[in-house]
This record gives sequence, C-alpha cells and structure tokens, in this order.
Amino acid sequence: MPLGVAVVGTGKMGADHVRRIDTAISGARVVAVADIEVERARKLAADLDGCTAHADAAAALAAPGVDAVLIASPGPAHEEALLRALALGLPVLCEKPLTPDAASAYRIVEAERRLGRRRIQVGFMRRFDAEYQQLKAALDAGGLGRPLMLHQRHRNTATPGHFTERMMITDSAAHEMDVTRWLTGHEIAAVQVVKPAPLPTSMNGVPDPQLVILETTGGAVADVELYRNAGFGDQVQCEAVCEHGTARIGDGHAMVVQAAGRWGGAIPQDYLTRFRAAYDREVQAWVDATLAGRVVGPSSWDGYAAAAACEAGVTAQATGVRTVVELADDEPF
Amino acid sequence: MPLGVAVVGTGKMGADHVRRIDTAISGARVVAVADIEVERARKLAADLDGCTAHADAAAALAAPGVDAVLIASPGPAHEEALLRALALGLPVLCEKPLTPDAASAYRIVEAERRLGRRRIQVGFMRRFDAEYQQLKAALDAGGLGRPLMLHQRHRNTATPGHFTERMMITDSAAHEMDVTRWLTGHEIAAVQVVKPAPLPTSMNGVPDPQLVILETTGGAVADVELYRNAGFGDQVQCEAVCEHGTARIGDGHAMVVQAAGRWGGAIPQDYLTRFRAAYDREVQAWVDATLAGRVVGPSSWDGYAAAAACEAGVTAQATGVRTVVELADDEPF
Amino acid sequence: MPLGVAVVGTGKMGADHVRRIDTAISGARVVAVADIEVERARKLAADLDGCTAHADAAAALAAPGVDAVLIASPGPAHEEALLRALALGLPVLCEKPLTPDAASAYRIVEAERRLGRRRIQVGFMRRFDAEYQQLKAALDAGGLGRPLMLHQRHRNTATPGHFTERMMITDSAAHEMDVTRWLTGHEIAAVQVVKPAPLPTSMNGVPDPQLVILETTGGAVADVELYRNAGFGDQVQCEAVCEHGTARIGDGHAMVVQAAGRWGGAIPQDYLTRFRAAYDREVQAWVDATLAGRVVGPSSWDGYAAAAACEAGVTAQATGVRTVVELADDEPF
Amino acid sequence: MPLGVAVVGTGKMGADHVRRIDTAISGARVVAVADIEVERARKLAADLDGCTAHADAAAALAAPGVDAVLIASPGPAHEEALLRALALGLPVLCEKPLTPDAASAYRIVEAERRLGRRRIQVGFMRRFDAEYQQLKAALDAGGLGRPLMLHQRHRNTATPGHFTERMMITDSAAHEMDVTRWLTGHEIAAVQVVKPAPLPTSMNGVPDPQLVILETTGGAVADVELYRNAGFGDQVQCEAVCEHGTARIGDGHAMVVQAAGRWGGAIPQDYLTRFRAAYDREVQAWVDATLAGRVVGPSSWDGYAAAAACEAGVTAQATGVRTVVELADDEPF
Repeated sequence: MPLGVAVVGTGKMGADHVRRIDTAISGARVVAVADIEVERARKLAADLDGCTAHADAAAALAAPGVDAVLIASPGPAHEEALLRALALGLPVLCEKPLTPDAASAYRIVEAERRLGRRRIQVGFMRRFDAEYQQLKAALDAGGLGRPLMLHQRHRNTATPGHFTERMMITDSAAHEMDVTRWLTGHEIAAVQVVKPAPLPTSMNGVPDPQLVILETTGGAVADVELYRNAGFGDQVQCEAVCEHGTARIGDGHAMVVQAAGRWGGAIPQDYLTRFRAAYDREVQAWVDATLAGRVVGPSSWDGYAAAAACEAGVTAQATGVRTVVELADDEPF
Repeated sequence: MPLGVAVVGTGKMGADHVRRIDTAISGARVVAVADIEVERARKLAADLDGCTAHADAAAALAAPGVDAVLIASPGPAHEEALLRALALGLPVLCEKPLTPDAASAYRIVEAERRLGRRRIQVGFMRRFDAEYQQLKAALDAGGLGRPLMLHQRHRNTATPGHFTERMMITDSAAHEMDVTRWLTGHEIAAVQVVKPAPLPTSMNGVPDPQLVILETTGGAVADVELYRNAGFGDQVQCEAVCEHGTARIGDGHAMVVQAAGRWGGAIPQDYLTRFRAAYDREVQAWVDATLAGRVVGPSSWDGYAAAAACEAGVTAQATGVRTVVELADDEPF
Repeated sequence: MPLGVAVVGTGKMGADHVRRIDTAISGARVVAVADIEVERARKLAADLDGCTAHADAAAALAAPGVDAVLIASPGPAHEEALLRALALGLPVLCEKPLTPDAASAYRIVEAERRLGRRRIQVGFMRRFDAEYQQLKAALDAGGLGRPLMLHQRHRNTATPGHFTERMMITDSAAHEMDVTRWLTGHEIAAVQVVKPAPLPTSMNGVPDPQLVILETTGGAVADVELYRNAGFGDQVQCEAVCEHGTARIGDGHAMVVQAAGRWGGAIPQDYLTRFRAAYDREVQAWVDATLAGRVVGPSSWDGYAAAAACEAGVTAQATGVRTVVELADDEPF
Repeated sequence: MPLGVAVVGTGKMGADHVRRIDTAISGARVVAVADIEVERARKLAADLDGCTAHADAAAALAAPGVDAVLIASPGPAHEEALLRALALGLPVLCEKPLTPDAASAYRIVEAERRLGRRRIQVGFMRRFDAEYQQLKAALDAGGLGRPLMLHQRHRNTATPGHFTERMMITDSAAHEMDVTRWLTGHEIAAVQVVKPAPLPTSMNGVPDPQLVILETTGGAVADVELYRNAGFGDQVQCEAVCEHGTARIGDGHAMVVQAAGRWGGAIPQDYLTRFRAAYDREVQAWVDATLAGRVVGPSSWDGYAAAAACEAGVTAQATGVRTVVELADDEPF
C-alpha cells in the first residue's frame, strides 16, 4: 500500500512536491492538499486520483487515508501544522525553516520530546544532494583530517523584489548554517556579517552580496558568500579545508579532492553506477508513455539498424578491411 | 492504477529493473517475473506484493494483471518473447540488442509493421542520459552546424573471462552504433576496425582495446575506442566535431562546448533545477523511512539550531559586530 | 650592451634571481653580488664571467659596471640598501617587503619623492603572473562590472620551524594586500583575522590556517585563507565576484569566467600563442647545448622518418587506402 | 660570449625567432639574417646591433661571428642551407620539415653521418612544450604501462587560401608523426586517411577535417583529427591510452591522468615552481624598462601601502578585532 500523504501549502515548492510524489518517486501518493487559497489546492487535487482539497492544515491532516504530512506552507504557518501533526502522531517532512525563530522552534523540539519519539524530518535537502553526500563521506572517512575551514558560495540568479535583508540570513544562510553543523558535527558559536559598499540599487537597496563568517563550538571557521542577484546563475559550492587536504563540491561535477600533492576525483567503476539515472529515466519514460497509450524512444528499426551495423563490424573486425553495411530501406512508422 | 509489468529475465540487468520499478520510479509495479532458472525468479517475486514467478516468457506474459513487458533475458531469447508480446499487443521495453543478428531483428520490424503500430522500445538507454540529451539538443539547435566527426570512448573497468572478440562489437560498440545514428540522423554506411598489437594476455587473448571507425550515409566519420579492460573505471565519452565548434560529454560533468573562441558550459538558472535530484532523494528517503516505521534526516533539533544561528546572524547583520549564538543544551533523542 | 646588475642578498631568492639573469632572460648580466655571508657571494660569483663578490650592499653598488640593483636580502636590510641606491640614482628591483614596517617604508617613499622620479620597482611578482594579468584585464575591461568581493587562497606545502605568527601577515598576506589593492584600485581600509581552534601542534603552535578579512576604501570585501602547512601543495587562487559575474584564477589552468548563464574560458587563437613558451624553451635548449658543445633534441633521422611517414600519408590521403611507410633501417648515431 | 646566430629566412616564423633570440632568451645574439627578399632581411637587421643582412643562406653562414645557424626558410630551401652548414661544421636548428620529401631528408641524414657527429636539431618544438614533456615523462615512468593508442586533435582557427590538401599531411600531421614516434619509441608503419563528406566550401574545396590513422612498428594505433578551419581556436591535444590508465594533455591545463579509479593531476609543491614564469617576466620587464630609461611595476608607494595594511593585520591578528589601516594620503608620482 502506498503511503498516503497530505501536502500543506501548494505554492511553488508545495506544488513541486505534489508533482514529485505523483510522477517521480515510488511508494507514496498525495491524498489531501491544503492551502489558505483553497482554489489553488482544488485545482491541484483535481488532477490527482482520490485527493481531497482543504482550506487549512488541520482539515487536511484529518482527511481519510492520511499517513504522513509534508509541510510546504510559509514559515509562520509551520508551528500550528507541526503541533497538529505531532498531536496526531503523524510523521512529518517540514520544509525549512522549521519555524521562523528560535523560541518557536524550541517549542517544537519540546513537543516532540514529550511525544517520546522522532516524528519530524526538516527539509534541509542538501544533505540528500549527491555531491554534499560525497563531501560528508570524505570528511567522515577521516583521511583528510579535521575540517578547519569551510568556504561556501550561495548564489542565485535573481531574487524577487519583496525580499528583505534579514531573509539573506533566514532564507539563504539557513542552508549553510545547517550544512556547517552537519559537516563539522559542531554547533554554530558565533556569527558576523561583512558587506561591500556602497549599496547596490537592486533589491530595494538590500546590500548584496554579503559575507557571513561562522565560528563553530569545535573551533572551525566557515565563510559564506551570499549573492541573491548574482545574475549569471544558481550556484552552491562548498570547499572543506582540512588538516591534510581539501575537498570541494559544486563546480558542476563530482567532488574534487586535493591531498598528497595531487588534485582529482573518482571515476565510476560500474556502468550501472555511471548510468543509473539514465536507466531510471528510460524506464520512467517508458511507463509514462505506456500509461498515456504511446510508444517513444528507440524503435525496433533502431534495433535492426544497430544489428546490421554490428554484423558489418564483426566482419570488419575479423578481416581488417572496410566493410559496407547492408540495410533494408523500408523503415516503417 | 499503476502499470502491471512482466519482467522477463532476472539476471543482473533484469533484477536491477525489478528493483527500479519497485522502489525508484512512479506509476508501475512488477506483477510477474520469468526466468529459465525459475528459482531465481521465485526468490525475486517473494519480496514483491502480488507478483507471480514463471519459467518462461509466455507464461509470464499471460499472467493476470500484465499490461506491459520488460525483456531483460539474454539476446538469443529476445525474438520469441518479442513475437509473443506483439501477438498479445503488449507494449515492450526490450534490452539491447533487439535480437543478436540483423535477419532476426528485421523479422521483428516486419512483425510490428504487420501489427500496424509501434509496440517496442529498445533499451538504448544513452538516449535518456542527461549528458547525451544535452549533446543531442546542442546539435539539433543548429548553432554548431553539421556534425562532421564523433570521437567516442567506451571503457569498462574489467570484463568477464567468457567475453569473446565479436562481443566487442555486438555488446559494446552496439551502443555507439545507435548513438552515432541518433546524433547524426544518418545510417551507418561502412565500418572498419584497427587493433593495437601484440595481443594482450587479458581476456583469453581478445585484442583490447580496439578502434572502430564508422562512416555514415550522410558523410560523417565516427571513431570509437573500445576498451573492455581499461582497469581504471567505467567511462563513456563523446565529442561531436561540427562545422562551427565542438561539444563534448562524459568527463564527469555537464557538456562542454567550444565555439567562437571560447570553451565552457551552462550554469543552472534555478535552484529547483540545480537540486531536483536532491529533492527527489529527500522525499523518497522520507517515504521509505516512514513506510519502514523510522524517521531519518535532519531533526527538529537541527531545525531549532539553525533558527538560533539565524537569529544571531540577523543581529550580526544589523549591528556589524560578532554575535554569539544562544542555544539550549538539551538536545533530545 | 647588457644591463649590469648588482644582486644584494644571495639566499634562496637571490641565488634564483642570479640564475635567472644569467640563463633565462635577455639583456642583463650580473656584475656584482653581495652577502653578509661573503663566502656564499664568492661561490656564486665564481661561476659568472666578470662578476665581483662583496660583503655589503654599499660595496656592490659601487662596483664597476653596475647599472641597476636587485635587492633580495632579508627585509630589515632593505632600507639601507634602498637609500644607497637612491643616493646613487640607480634603478632598483626590491624583493617584497619594501621594508618591514610602514614608517620605514614611508621614509623610502619620501626619499624617492625628493629624488623627483621613480627609481624603485617592488617585487610583487603576482602582477606579472599570466593568470593574474588575465584577471586584471578582465576586471579593467568592465564587462563584469565593479568587483564586490575577492576570495583568495594562499597555501604552502610546508613552512620552516622558525616561522612566527606575525609572518602569516607580513610574509604571506602581504601578497594579497597588494593584489587586493591592484585589482580593485582601492586602498585597504580595515583588517580582521579569524582563526580556527584549537591550535595545531605544527609550526611551534602558530595557529594555521587563518582567515583574513579586508575591507577596501572603495567598499569591496576580500577574504584570504592563509594556510602555511597545507601539506598537499603550493596553491594561490583568486576569485573576483563582480556585479555581473565572477572570474577565477589559480586552478591550474587559465582564467574561468562566469557570466550570463555560462562558465568558461578563452581558447588561444594562434599557434604562436599556444606554443610560445615551447618555442622559447626549444631555442634556449639549442643555444645552451650548442654553447656546451652538444646537440640535443630531434635529430635529422627524426626529420627523415617524419618525411617518410608524411609521404605515405599523402598517398593514403589521395587513394583512401592503408599505405605502408617505406623507411631505411640504418639510423646513425 | 654569447652564441652568434645566423637566421636564414625572415618570414613570420624567422622573424619571431629573431625577436626571441634578441629579447626573450639568454646566451645568444643574431649576427646575420638572410632572405631572398633581402629588403625584409635588411629591415630586421637594422634594429639589431652588429647584425648583417644577406640575400642567401651561404652568404649569411659565411658572415663574421656566425657560430650556429637557425633555418626558417621555406622547406624546399632547407636542403641547400643544411648541406652548407654541415660543410662548415656549424650546429643547426632547422624548422620542420627537415626537407619536403623522404629522399632529400635521407641525403641530409647521410651527409651528417659522413661528418661523423650530430650537428642538426629539427624544429619539432612540441618536444619542448611543458605539457608534452609531462606526458612523455609519465609514459617513461612506466606506471601506466605500454601506450596502446594515442588520440590526437590538431585544430587551427583558420587557414590561408593557398593551403593544399597534401599540406594537411606535410604541414599539419607532420607534428603528430613526430609526436607519435617520440611518445611510443616506434616508427610509423602504416597510414590511412578517412574524410567526412560532402566537401566543405572552405579552403578551395580541400576536405576538412580529416581523420588520420597511424599504426606503429610496435603495434600502437594513433588517430589524429586534423581540422584546419575549426573556427573556434588553435588547439592541440593528445591522450595516451595505456595498459593501466590514460594521460591527457592540451585542455588548457596541466596533464590529467586516469588510473586506479581516479582522475587528476599534480599540484606544484613549491612557489618557485608555481610562479617561475612570473618571476622571469617580472625581472625581464624590469630589465627592459630600465634599458629603456623607464620604471614600471609596483612602486615604493605600493610597498608602503602593503606595509601599512600588514601592520594593521598584525594588530588584528593579535587582538581578534577589526583594525583600521593608517595610511598617509600623499602618494607621489
């Protein structure tokens, strides 16, 4: 039986999660959606088999078939939905921030503690990014030694006009707060912010970029460039500088390690590793097309033409001479 | 209703497809598996809800709930299974090769033609690889002009001892036969093979590597290095040399284009693009853990600690001075 | 007539400059060397035609044939040598630091001002590095807009035991002080230093690495990672983050620019550019060997063998068939 | 005493060598130049102290002060100049090709053999390119095993209209003929050429690009893409595919090796290595400026400003707080 999920909040992020559960991942289905703009929820539910639409989180959580909750509403609405989910004992995936401030977040910690067992996963999704996981694994493996510094870049192509300066911290740097804690295993001990001047005219005068410097309880130092209007693209990078080398991710390819006089990375050892995502996309595309009554992808003619070329190839291989391919000329469809 | 799939052949490739349909993709379930080693099929079916095991393809295709067929048995068994699927009008995803030789492959083309509509997708999965799709899109966009040459590398870490020389063509080069046809839009017109000497001692004396040179009906030239015992890893690369520049994939990062005096690539413009796979993995991990009665990933304490660090960050941002983070010290669980 | 140079200081750096003037560059010769360890100076002078050795800078500057002075003695000895050179009106190339502190450096500025014309070039050699020059040119070209941040890494493989903490600034960061001034065109306005803890046991307890944060009079922010015992190698990197993109150097290849949705770099447009250094090394190797009475490099046989292969190539090109190379088998020497 | 060089041929290549000897390398001077367009030779000689101009090679070789000869005239003129130099016993650096065909090249080999000692270095300058030398060293070190294949790319931005098809081989591929011989230590045994079709309209119908396939006497296979009108730039690449890994150069950075599951390269271990070229350029720039009566590069003010910033830095380092830089405001010059 697939997991029945209630999705609370159907803005950009929530709608993307609904699509994800419906068409990209395995083992779950969306059975209820909630949004204070209930029309938006209704439109989304209309495309989903057996999904109900609601005007608030409480109603969605009480809908039939709900086994778990995904919270993607604005941050200020999180506390109420979280407490309701905890009261019902439902597992929750809550988009970050958990709540907008430390006091309310601590109330959630306490409510879950009273429940006596973990129910909440917070949506710091970088911990699930393949490159961040490579970096975490490299640090945990120990060969590079203790991480001493983290250099982080967090750049966005552009940012909407309603963005405020404090959101540079609560919306952007929040990710690096978590990454720094996760990679070092320390808590954040102190923060400072340095800003270039004069102020840019973009973003209603919000200073951009900004440099955030974090010190951890274990003595590591992390710097974070926040650049909300970088213009050229969306880019997230992290370099860990350790006792015996560095490891860097986010350059558009897999992790690069510097140690013992060399820089470089790993080469996949198996074609199922190299092409895992391609296989997933291939079979998903086949399933999607079949459900839609279509056939896509390479055809039987493609299979035949490759077989004919391979026959010529085998002859060429055995004889050492150029061999012409014999091919019928009546491709169907 | 999910698509009911019969998987024919439960060796390495078939078992991987069963796992893929069961745990990685959306909209399908495995309802029947077949293998001449029926014990192997039974073991696999035992872990799947409502899945039956069979000793041959015909039985599996006739099993209740079968809407479509995935063929992953050895190549010589494909023809019979394909014809049976066509007879039943079932959509098929058939692992490459379609069949082991051109004559039998052409029989499949004709059988499908008689049916009057496409039923078969052949498993040339490189067409679903993100990098190959970038390359195809770049060529189709036209800015680089006509492709004149393709330089391809097809390297495997190691190859089992039963591998024969002709499999260098039928098993390895078959992929590049299809890629060359797909990227150029031409058929393969002629093939030749050049081999280094003296023979290596590996692989029972099969000469390795080999250089295959393809000429297409449209006048393009493609070279393919086949290296089955490269030792260092599994690597598939392709560079298209065109009238106005080159595009190259397979170096472990996204496509690199050379044109108009510059080399480089594209930067993602949106965080949902940059982190799509991370979001998919995050939600899949949450669903999997929840179905297993567990909670994983960042905890409410992680959410709280980030909120506390952000509060200090907002103060540091406003005051310009180093700000200490206030954090409770009673992390639960 | 070549320029007659007096080299003051014959330690590692000074001896390298003597070798450079003698064997690598054009238009100058070393006519005098000075070192308080006069034996060291004498040993160096013995290998140089017409070069005299001296125990102090004043004597070397007064030696016959001296047209210019290169100062490579320890920093505290610079002021005296500089003032003497200014008194004699001699052009000076002075290794950094100009002098060890601001007050003495300002005395040099004043002495040169009194002279009424520039005589001194300070050895901030990064301004002559090809990659730094690319970066400077990119910033000056204006397309990237104003530089807002500089991220700099200054890493050394290892550092001698006598290294003190303040040398992290005066010896290492001094380079980035100059680079930051040069690239932005601003003065440094303020400095702070953040250090990871606990202290490492290396380098007599000098905290390493350290993060230096510079603010410029024009409002740019620069961070500098100083890492004297990085262990893995010697590495100097700089990324300029600008209004419309970034430019980065020091990754072991030419500058990489990010702007307008793309990352990448320039491709040389001319083989004399691509291979300029190779031509220089070729002709220098020929001159050196000839002066030593030897002949090195590709031989006439190499020229003949290439000609024979080219003849076969021209035939193969005209006929389209594999053509065997005819080659004599009596290679001489 | 510097080596007195006669330069025969003062076209693009010859003039560049004259400039090189005059201003870039150490230990030699041009004492004679020859060109059948004697006006061109005269113009060049006029800028050089004590250099005579001649209408033919013989006259130049007989000029006073000639110790060695650099031949940069068109290929058909090489034989006569080479034989004359051998008759005089003069060391020669001869631009490639040695001579235009195998028979005449072999006459040179025999003439030098009769002389009983090597006099000739042929201008295959790739052997002096830092990246090619890294590749050669990696192959000679043995860890990668025997080279089995070489993949080479030889691309030019554009090619003059008088270029003929056979020059694809004699002018372009000649380099790869030598590189293949040098890297493998084998002779070229056979050649074939494969060309895309239809013919391009560029270069008077010369087919471009072309794929050249070389087989060596030791059993290695080398492919060479020749692309004279690549349009995007000048690019020379070589990948050696060996028994235990690959090594690749020409991507705009140092050699990348793939072996044992990893890809990567070496990091310089010493700042004199990292910045050797910068030091050379710095001192050369200082010498050139001084000889021209000028002073360039960082000034004493730059030295002072860096010293002032360092003083603030040392205070910041000791106190942990942001420290303002004290700087005079009377920069001279």
